[in-house]
Parts: sequence; structure tokens; C-alpha cells
Amino acid sequence: MENFVFKNTTTIIFGRDTITKAGQEALKYGKSVLLVYGEGFVKRAGILDKVLASLTSSELKITEFPGAMPNPTLSHVQKGIDLCRDNDIDFILAVGGGSAIDVAKAIGVGALYSGNVWDLFDMIAFTTETIPVGVILTVPGTGSESSNSCVITNEKTLIKRGLNDDLIRPVFAIMDPELSYSLTSYQTACGLADAMSHVMERYFTATPNVDCTDRMCEALLKSLIANGPIAIASPDNYDARAEILLASKFAHDNTVGVGRIGDFSTHKLGHQLSVFYDMAHGASVALMFLAWMRYVYEQDLDRFVKYAERVWDVPASLVNPEAIALEGINRTESFFRSMTLPVKLSEAGIPSDRFEEMSEKATSVTGGIIGNFTKLTTADVVKIYKLAK
Amino acid sequence: MENFVFKNTTTIIFGRDTITKAGQEALKYGKSVLLVYGEGFVKRAGILDKVLASLTSSELKITEFPGAMPNPTLSHVQKGIDLCRDNDIDFILAVGGGSAIDVAKAIGVGALYSGNVWDLFDMIAFTTETIPVGVILTVPGTGSESSNSCVITNEKTLIKRGLNDDLIRPVFAIMDPELSYSLTSYQTACGLADAMSHVMERYFTATPNVDCTDRMCEALLKSLIANGPIAIASPDNYDARAEILLASKFAHDNTVGVGRIGDFSTHKLGHQLSVFYDMAHGASVALMFLAWMRYVYEQDLDRFVKYAERVWDVPASLVNPEAIALEGINRTESFFRSMTLPVKLSEAGIPSDRFEEMSEKATSVTGGIIGNFTKLTTADVVKIYKLAK
Repeated sequence: MENFVFKNTTTIIFGRDTITKAGQEALKYGKSVLLVYGEGFVKRAGILDKVLASLTSSELKITEFPGAMPNPTLSHVQKGIDLCRDNDIDFILAVGGGSAIDVAKAIGVGALYSGNVWDLFDMIAFTTETIPVGVILTVPGTGSESSNSCVITNEKTLIKRGLNDDLIRPVFAIMDPELSYSLTSYQTACGLADAMSHVMERYFTATPNVDCTDRMCEALLKSLIANGPIAIASPDNYDARAEILLASKFAHDNTVGVGRIGDFSTHKLGHQLSVFYDMAHGASVALMFLAWMRYVYEQDLDRFVKYAERVWDVPASLVNPEAIALEGINRTESFFRSMTLPVKLSEAGIPSDRFEEMSEKATSVTGGIIGNFTKLTTADVVKIYKLAK
Repeated sequence: MENFVFKNTTTIIFGRDTITKAGQEALKYGKSVLLVYGEGFVKRAGILDKVLASLTSSELKITEFPGAMPNPTLSHVQKGIDLCRDNDIDFILAVGGGSAIDVAKAIGVGALYSGNVWDLFDMIAFTTETIPVGVILTVPGTGSESSNSCVITNEKTLIKRGLNDDLIRPVFAIMDPELSYSLTSYQTACGLADAMSHVMERYFTATPNVDCTDRMCEALLKSLIANGPIAIASPDNYDARAEILLASKFAHDNTVGVGRIGDFSTHKLGHQLSVFYDMAHGASVALMFLAWMRYVYEQDLDRFVKYAERVWDVPASLVNPEAIALEGINRTESFFRSMTLPVKLSEAGIPSDRFEEMSEKATSVTGGIIGNFTKLTTADVVKIYKLAK
């Protein structure tokens, strides 16, 4: 186990009808609220009206900032920063999924930083201040509601990049399973795959002797695998929605990642599918994980055997360790397919002609090498994209 | 799943040589430190010298308060409160296990409360202030290093009682697995049993539909069961010590208890063994859990079957569900016995003549009824003590 420091300051307010607490919670942090949300879903489902009612009853000044889109862009963040400065915003409330939350986080640090907020993503500047951010979560999966990361796309340079700092953990997250009833099957599947990927990025580690967090990772995966199909078959099944919501939080708030070094190369590979082809994030990481696993499993066969046996109940009696490991990967693929997620690039309509360019982008931030489970060069990444064809 | 609010503000500083950070961490909160510790172990193992060196290098004023004992008493807490007031203490650092930490927590709230600190344990008064408490953990098991509870014995009334409030979570916990190398086998076993009991108090719930936290509980139990015997056989096995240390924290910081109502009657039963016979806390809850399980398992056979199959790998092919459940309890007993813990009161030299009195004490705080998995009357508690003979 590695030495580590861990602190998670987000207050989780979980359960039915918790949305009514938005106003009183926000009032603990500010009086002038920037309300960040996306188009469509939160309005259609009547969620926005409830939030506005709660904020109004607490006499908060509200500045609305709609328009958060999947794979949110730097220019959109910049608009929000300008709104904060023009309206003396002292609290930001995101209503939605990872996109709205990540926009809110980036605005929070950007509004108090005198330079260009992208400097922080480029890691050429650092900051110690943010406008506090609260969350009303409607789309489980990203874990952004209590994670220390946010991911934004610089649409001019086609670079999608994360900012990771405990500073940007939301101060509270309101999590009502009922808010996710109206998600489409595909949205539910993408969120589930995203949560699973967050666990798997941590599970596939080169850090030895991490028994406790191994088992906690396996627990989360098994719960997600058990409850995902129930939520898709019965969108208003409270219990399944609640399990997914809770497991998705633990999947990325780093509870199960302490003391171990995660891999996270698959996220970098998936990001390119979003940037180049606007593919949904959850679908992109599910697809790329399958190819990544097939490319790297021989590097630590024991770990892939453990994954197969403990997560997918592959019998230890199977022919040999390699067969067990491969059966674990096959079952992962079958599961994603059963959730109607594409498991090959061709199924997602993504061509093969930009693999070189995408691989360059995926590895550019870290000098041409990514990954911790095993190191991958740009050439490796090209091969993984080819495996995913 | 139940609605819940969860926040854990303790900063965990985990790993080798982290003790050297004590001074710089303490300095974030105060300048005049009350150093709370017990006799013997922390001095013998050279831990205290290292702490003093770190505090001194940060130029902190140090007031030493030794003498924390297992099952710490109200009168000892009161002495610490007086010391705080006499020395303008603005930070308390506990060095040790649950006893030192619980003393520090009680002093922290007591020093800023104008009445008798026992009022807070009796729940006839409440407070919103504490002197911040930091921890250097040397004995894993109690989870007090990042829990919101502390347990003190009022030696005049023979009442051992917990105070539970997020206010008393330590601000930081330094957790170096090497600090537990010098523990005796019995201390290690007691700590392990205590951690297991914290998971089991949460696992045995009447709350339905708690799949994710069920699995996380099982993960912690399996890791504790796997690593306990290694640490006893090889006291300086870093990896096993680290797993136990980490799992013990998660066992009681309520990560795995969110959204479910724990039972905690076994703790109340065990407390009487400590108060009446000065039995070590971990040993007392291990012993009482065995009797409690045998008394209540029929109330929710499915849960006990799940426990047996998932935690103890009892084959599902066994005769019938009751046999599976009982085999799970038997394997728990065998495990505790293998850790050289007493599994019967007679083995611990505890007589049967005060069961009525102990049962009255155990149920007195809550009007004669304890437990949430199933409700227990004073008469039930007497029967459980008899089962444990």
C-alpha cells in the first residue's frame, strides 16, 4: 500500500425529497447564486422548478446559466466566469450530471483566478481559491458530485483535460434517486459504465498489497452490475436507482482508491472519442476499457484472474489462468452489450482514419507516456484503438 | 435504503514515517497542545519521543496528560478538562488507541462546555463547540480516529456510555502501520474483533435494500479476517498491519453504514463486561456477538445466510438455510477462538451472578429496549448473557 492523504469534505444529502433542502443548504455559503444547468432534461422532468422554488424560499438572488452540454467546453465555462464577475456571485449550484457539475467547478476556480482558467488545466498555474459549489445530482455516474476532479474540452485545440484538486470538491451534494427516474436507458447505461470505469481505473493498479481496497472495488462493481439491469428494466425502481447513485459516488470520491495508484489511461483514450466524435463519456470509457484490458492483461495475469473470479464469478476451475482472465473480459463485454452500449468503434460509427492523431492527443499532456498499471506509448495507444475497431 | 446525511471531515494521513508530520499538522489548529496518552506502550515503543520531537520542532507549547487507561473514566476526563482551562489549551493531540482518543474527544467538548461534561453523554444537554482534536493512532480497531463517537465510563454510577456527534470527529489522524508492530497478540486480536464488530453492528440491519453497503461491509470483514492471522503470526508484517489499519477506519467512520440503521445492541452488552469486569472492549464485543447472533438469527434468516455465504464462504449446498446460517456463526466463533479470544464468559473468568444487573444497565438509557435489527428487552438481554456462559 502507498502512503496517502485523504479528506473528503462534501456533505452528502441523500434520499427522497432532499431537493427541497437546496435553498437552506445554499444559504450556508452565499446569497447570490449562479444556477448552472443543461438544456432539456432538468426542465422537462420538473426538477428546475423545484430547485428554483427552494432557492426562492430562502430569499437567494438567482442568476441562471443554462446551456451546459455533454463534453462541456472552455468557451461555455468562460461565459459563466463572466456572469459570476458581473453579478457578484458567491455560490454556484449545479443541477444535472457531470457536465453541469464540471462546468460549475471550472467556473468556481476560474472566477477567482485572474488569468485564463485553462492555465489551471494546463497545470502552468495553480490556485487556492474557489467560489463554493453545491450540486443537485440528476445523472449518476460521473461521481463529480463529491470528486476532486472536473473535465473540460478546449474546443479550439481539441484537448479534453481534467483538473484534479481537493479545492474543487463540492461543499454539498443533494442526491435523490427519484431524480434519475426520467433518464433514458442509454443515459442510465452510460452513467453505469462511467461509474464502473472509475472503479476499474483504480482496481487495475501496479501497487501491490491493496487487499482492503481491492475488495471494496469488487463490492462496488458487483453492486453496479446487479442493479444496472434492474434500473434499465424498471426506470422507477427506487432501490436500484439508490444503489447505483450511492455506488457511483464511492466509485470516484476516492474512498476505494486510497493507498493505490490508479491507471486512468482508458479515460484519456475515451476522451478522444468524445472530442473527435462527440461520443457520450460513459459509452467511450466502456468501449475503450474492453480494448485496453485485452491489450494489457498479460502484464499482471493474477490481477485479471482475481477480477474475473471475484467480480464476474468465473469459476476457478476453468482451463488455465489466461482462460479465466479472458473470460472475465468477455463477461465485461457481454454485460456492456446487454446494456446496449457499443463494444466496438464500428458499432458506434467511428472510423479508423484518425487513430494516430487521437493517440497523440491522448498522450500529449504527459510527454508521450500514459498509464500506471502499465506504461503506454503513443504507439501502444494506436494499437489499442485498432483493437477496438 | 434510508435517507441520510453524511460528512467526514477527518484528514487521514496514512503510511510510513507520517508521525513526523504531527507538529506541522497540529500547528494548523493551535499553539498550546494538550498531549493525551496512556501509560506504557507509547513510551516503551519510542512513539512518544518522536511525537514530542515533532511538536517541539514546530514550536508548540506542550502540556502532557498521561494516564489514559482502557475503558477510560469520567474522572480522568475531568482532570484533562481542568488542565485545558488552566493552560489555555487550543489543540488536543491523542497518541494511542481508542482510550486516549476518546478521552481527548470528551475533554475537547467538556472544556468548552460550562456544565458537567457527563450531561452531554446523558443527552440532557448539547453543545456545538469543541477544542479541535488530532490523533496519532497506535492501536487500530476502535475506529475512533475518524468516527463521530466516544465512549466514557462514569465510574460512580457504573455506566459506560457513548457520545455521538459529528462535532467530535478528529481534524486529522496520523496512521502509520509500523506503530502497531509492538502490540501484543491479544491487543491485535482485540482491535481486530472490535473493527469486525463495528462492521457487523451495521451489517445486521432491518433496513431492506442496502446492496451496495452490504457488499462493502462484506469486503471489510473479508479483509480483516484474511489479514488478522498474518499480523498475529508476523507482528512486523507491514502489509497486513496496513490492511487492518485501513479496514478498521472504514469499519467505524460510517462509510459502510450510510443509508442503513445499525443495531449496536452488542456494544451495549459488551460494555457491561468492561464496566463490571474490566474486560477489554474488543474481546467483550466479540464474545457477546456470538451469543447475540445465536439468539437473533431466526429473525432474518436470509441475512444470516448471506453473511455465512459471502463472508465465510459457507457453501450454498449445505443442508438448509438454517444450517448455512449456523455454520456462518460457527465459523465466526472458530475465527475468534483462533485469535485466542475467549468465546464464552466462563473462559474469560466471568461469573453468572450479575446478569440481571448488567442487563438493566445495558438497556437503561433507552427505556428498557435496545437494538434495531430486532428489539431486545431487558429479559432478552439476560437470556443472551446466559447463552454466552
